[in-house]
Amino acid sequence: MKAAIIGGTGYGSIELVRLINKHPYLEIGSVVSNSQAGVNFSDVYPHLSDVVVQPLETFNANRLSEENDIVFLATPSGVSSKLVPQLLEKRIKCIDLSGDFRLRSSEEYENWYKHSSPEEMYLKQAVYGLSEIYKEEIRQSTLIANPGCYPTATNLGLLPILKSKLADEKSIIIDAKSGVSGAGRGLSLTSHYSEINENTKAYKLGKHQHIPEIEQVLSDESGNPITVTFTTHLVPMTRGIMCTMYVNLKEKISTQKIIDLYKQFYQESHFIRVRPEGNIPATKEVMGSNFCDIGLHVDERTNRLTVISVIDNLVKGAAGQAIQNANLMNGWDDQTGLTDLPIYP
Amino acid sequence: MKAAIIGGTGYGSIELVRLINKHPYLEIGSVVSNSQAGVNFSDVYPHLSDVVVQPLETFNANRLSEENDIVFLATPSGVSSKLVPQLLEKRIKCIDLSGDFRLRSSEEYENWYKHSSPEEMYLKQAVYGLSEIYKEEIRQSTLIANPGCYPTATNLGLLPILKSKLADEKSIIIDAKSGVSGAGRGLSLTSHYSEINENTKAYKLGKHQHIPEIEQVLSDESGNPITVTFTTHLVPMTRGIMCTMYVNLKEKISTQKIIDLYKQFYQESHFIRVRPEGNIPATKEVMGSNFCDIGLHVDERTNRLTVISVIDNLVKGAAGQAIQNANLMNGWDDQTGLTDLPIYP
Amino acid sequence: MKAAIIGGTGYGSIELVRLINKHPYLEIGSVVSNSQAGVNFSDVYPHLSDVVVQPLETFNANRLSEENDIVFLATPSGVSSKLVPQLLEKRIKCIDLSGDFRLRSSEEYENWYKHSSPEEMYLKQAVYGLSEIYKEEIRQSTLIANPGCYPTATNLGLLPILKSKLADEKSIIIDAKSGVSGAGRGLSLTSHYSEINENTKAYKLGKHQHIPEIEQVLSDESGNPITVTFTTHLVPMTRGIMCTMYVNLKEKISTQKIIDLYKQFYQESHFIRVRPEGNIPATKEVMGSNFCDIGLHVDERTNRLTVISVIDNLVKGAAGQAIQNANLMNGWDDQTGLTDLPIYP
Amino acid sequence: MKAAIIGGTGYGSIELVRLINKHPYLEIGSVVSNSQAGVNFSDVYPHLSDVVVQPLETFNANRLSEENDIVFLATPSGVSSKLVPQLLEKRIKCIDLSGDFRLRSSEEYENWYKHSSPEEMYLKQAVYGLSEIYKEEIRQSTLIANPGCYPTATNLGLLPILKSKLADEKSIIIDAKSGVSGAGRGLSLTSHYSEINENTKAYKLGKHQHIPEIEQVLSDESGNPITVTFTTHLVPMTRGIMCTMYVNLKEKISTQKIIDLYKQFYQESHFIRVRPEGNIPATKEVMGSNFCDIGLHVDERTNRLTVISVIDNLVKGAAGQAIQNANLMNGWDDQTGLTDLPIYP
Repeated sequence: MKAAIIGGTGYGSIELVRLINKHPYLEIGSVVSNSQAGVNFSDVYPHLSDVVVQPLETFNANRLSEENDIVFLATPSGVSSKLVPQLLEKRIKCIDLSGDFRLRSSEEYENWYKHSSPEEMYLKQAVYGLSEIYKEEIRQSTLIANPGCYPTATNLGLLPILKSKLADEKSIIIDAKSGVSGAGRGLSLTSHYSEINENTKAYKLGKHQHIPEIEQVLSDESGNPITVTFTTHLVPMTRGIMCTMYVNLKEKISTQKIIDLYKQFYQESHFIRVRPEGNIPATKEVMGSNFCDIGLHVDERTNRLTVISVIDNLVKGAAGQAIQNANLMNGWDDQTGLTDLPIYP
Repeated sequence: MKAAIIGGTGYGSIELVRLINKHPYLEIGSVVSNSQAGVNFSDVYPHLSDVVVQPLETFNANRLSEENDIVFLATPSGVSSKLVPQLLEKRIKCIDLSGDFRLRSSEEYENWYKHSSPEEMYLKQAVYGLSEIYKEEIRQSTLIANPGCYPTATNLGLLPILKSKLADEKSIIIDAKSGVSGAGRGLSLTSHYSEINENTKAYKLGKHQHIPEIEQVLSDESGNPITVTFTTHLVPMTRGIMCTMYVNLKEKISTQKIIDLYKQFYQESHFIRVRPEGNIPATKEVMGSNFCDIGLHVDERTNRLTVISVIDNLVKGAAGQAIQNANLMNGWDDQTGLTDLPIYP
Repeated sequence: MKAAIIGGTGYGSIELVRLINKHPYLEIGSVVSNSQAGVNFSDVYPHLSDVVVQPLETFNANRLSEENDIVFLATPSGVSSKLVPQLLEKRIKCIDLSGDFRLRSSEEYENWYKHSSPEEMYLKQAVYGLSEIYKEEIRQSTLIANPGCYPTATNLGLLPILKSKLADEKSIIIDAKSGVSGAGRGLSLTSHYSEINENTKAYKLGKHQHIPEIEQVLSDESGNPITVTFTTHLVPMTRGIMCTMYVNLKEKISTQKIIDLYKQFYQESHFIRVRPEGNIPATKEVMGSNFCDIGLHVDERTNRLTVISVIDNLVKGAAGQAIQNANLMNGWDDQTGLTDLPIYP
Repeated sequence: MKAAIIGGTGYGSIELVRLINKHPYLEIGSVVSNSQAGVNFSDVYPHLSDVVVQPLETFNANRLSEENDIVFLATPSGVSSKLVPQLLEKRIKCIDLSGDFRLRSSEEYENWYKHSSPEEMYLKQAVYGLSEIYKEEIRQSTLIANPGCYPTATNLGLLPILKSKLADEKSIIIDAKSGVSGAGRGLSLTSHYSEINENTKAYKLGKHQHIPEIEQVLSDESGNPITVTFTTHLVPMTRGIMCTMYVNLKEKISTQKIIDLYKQFYQESHFIRVRPEGNIPATKEVMGSNFCDIGLHVDERTNRLTVISVIDNLVKGAAGQAIQNANLMNGWDDQTGLTDLPIYP
């Protein structure tokens, strides 16, 4: 099956190339970039010269849908909202890695993204692709809003305790740490080596566009409107996200009981690995893989639960989950092409 | 004035050497290490061969107090509790960078440090050397318990809001990120390059020995017993600590009002720099200096305050604050020898 | 086919686990460690708890050869020389990742390794497993001395120009830069995070045990005794080796001609990728993969050739080449299980 | 004495700010940036808000020379050639950190820099500010061409052996490794965090504009025209340069003899520290300081000398040497304000 990638030579694209290349049923069809049309992928990534031989082409919905069976959009915010309607018209399945179709409310979208929203029709049509949680809806969908990296780690870490009704829903705090590749390949002082190396910095306090995405999922699943405190930090590494999450518990309960509850919740989710008591995952332990590892600790002194979830932001937080969703949409086992172990060290 | 350093060739020692070397009134006297006696400092640090010419010597309270005017102890936990009594008997001033004399309760000490406590007499005598807060007591003291790196960043960040009585004292959560040099020069898998690089990991959840130290100061200053949730993370950098702290506010109040309150609190504290609204400090912005920079943000949606404080763990979190305390004990301006700007980038 | 790994939980072992796990014809049989026998692999690497379920066992040649079809030894220097004879007696194929069987001369071995050599009989029997160069010998062999990381990058980079007879054989200088994982998981100040991060250091000038291994191959292939200058540097990264090599040319020749010569030499070697003119590979461009990429530049002003070769030291420089050799020994395509693209960024 | 800085908020500027701030006789006067005029330094570097209070101003030779006593130019290539003539006319001393006045030949300049050269008159007038070598000329000069970072480390490392006449002058190879801060604060893919972290890459093979600068000094001092092979590499760190240099010796001579010769050569140069036999400096051992440390090793097997020199590229390789030159021009001890020890770790 041929997969088109829209998004030029960004980190989303190159990670899709890596994963599609080892997928047994997918192969790379078109690679699209309006701004880089005609450029060879290998001019940018010479180490991939034998892998992507086709030059980058301009967007053409007709040709794309004729020559490909599925489309991955790894475009900047505000781009896929223009392209997806044309593609859906051609009845080709779309998986959008940007944030354009993740929020159901166009008002919320414009509030946080600061530019105009896609048409409401498409916001309603899109299925939010948190693979473990919305498996059935994804199977039926033709348009997937692939989750953001932070919301993936956060929501996978919080949903079991939230659904258990043991959590004080007003108490949720998420302290997130991310590697720098999440900011993409576009040049910026906040991705400039000498500014980031040997440095830890917080950014976008109270303003990160992933806040409404997190809250939408938590509110949906809880049944109550949920507001969280969410703080993002850049740490000097390329790949990896850790979310350290704090939740007040409504009753006394042991760490082990919480772990049992999480293991039960994820018993059929191969990619979610709940760690045993006393064992907390590190980001490197999932690097290059599609796993989300979760560690749990109840502080008896404060009766507060700490949840720590880690993912590779470019895999489970982007291209890997996109492939997982493509697997579901095509009726394949969701692990297909995603069975690699983390690279360690 | 001659300053002895006890602690061999550890990172505490070498940072004391760097700072004493540029101090106008201090010079390096003896350098002590029982395990490395006879070794030349320059065998370990060849780039300091002209700076520390005296060989490492064994501990001898008589000789030390005759040849020096002040002693810095940068020893592992449990060592200075043996040495300090001998030194105090010789009436020489001691500044202990280890945790041995920081807790007033020997029970608490043994609970968290897992070995036997110093004699209570000395625990009572020691003054906790958080320079900005206990300036007067430090001036009168002969034994300083120099604060831990995390408690320095945490308490400097929390005390203004706590003393304002605007904080819900049960709600305090501290999410701390540290560079690896805080773990010292002793070999360990958790300081092994390939395990740490490109990795973020949490450690000692609910078990860190800095918890009672933080709580002792906060409880003292609040007047109420305070229990916190404190989570430590290693991030891949050598120097720097960031504490991201979350506090529920008891009433609505703007970020600017909180900033005013902090600026007021620290108006005479040169080393504490409260940032203006919208500006959050990064660890690199204090590297190599004795500053503690603080950023503040009130999330109006949750009425929760986020405090972010950063220090260089080896300077304000260890050797720098020790020099600052030595300045106070000797009646000098507390900035003496500590006026360097951060190294950036 | 079952593959045993001897070497406990070192980085060689865990990389073999990663690669065997995705190999279509190999699966992990026994994992051996005398010092860690009884330990679970997952106690050390909790993220692999579902992958290696068998506990580490002590070395037993009988049991090993009954339960496995091939043995990989990823042991410290001086260990496999004791174990391999027992295994060969059981007629099981051995691939030794240590340096024990790489030098043909026991005198040279003892000279450079500073402990006693394996029996000469085995030194003679072992085939040096530089896969691209000794493909036929490897296919027939039962004992492979898997090459060192530096010699792999160096010899693959130098052999084409050397065999062309265009090189001044006395002029060869190799300036090598390595990530830290090559030093393994054993604790040492030279792998201590705070000593390595933000640092570049040279080590073992003129004393590195890979010197005779490089010279043996170059001399064999040239027909003349070759002596090189070889300098190793640690750079602050986990994976990757770059060898920058300088060779005086005996006659004027263009960069393009040299590139043609290299492409010709490696035309059937899938893993060796010779870059076009003006394009020099970086270590990240092979990370996680079994590729060795080579860039070439003739400086017309000095008529000196610069060859730059890069590998992932744990893949093509260790476990990956070991799997490639296992493929050859078993009559499989040498790319089997090794087709992954580099992880970038 | 007031010092003006021309060069906005680049890394050269901020390092000058740091060093001038601790200099006993210098203080910051004007800070100039045509492109950022009106901006506050503290908007870019909030941690320096109390240090540089004056806003950035446009270039005005009259005002600058009235309000300042010396000018440091830390501008991009091609800028200072326009500004310096106006400043010299006002009889104010200039130290130019860019490459504009380093080459005496305008032809060579245009050849390597690819844009038009300053007027020959100024090229002739400028003194090359390699402080240890041209001390007397610097003392008399009004225009200093402050050396490049690579040429500083290279020439300080090569001059003693070259002047000894023991070197085969045709054999010189320089393999240089640099941290990323040398590339400045301007955005570029080659300074983009995710491209540089966990990566080592070579760049500008045979084309680096520091080649003619190195050769000019070596040829001047040797008396013969010297051509070198010079290869530059980026390694993943912010600060530090290591040059590993290879020189064939014309006769047999021991490492110790070479060390004696170097120590003799630099006996009055406080900042140049020649290491004893067996001891090779690492970049971290000079970080933040104005030292250049040199290690030496003769390989008896090839009779080739390896010289390893390390500097902090922003200090001895830029702002520190500029201050050292200002000291000389003003008749002060050349160590004034530069006595800090390296920051380690």
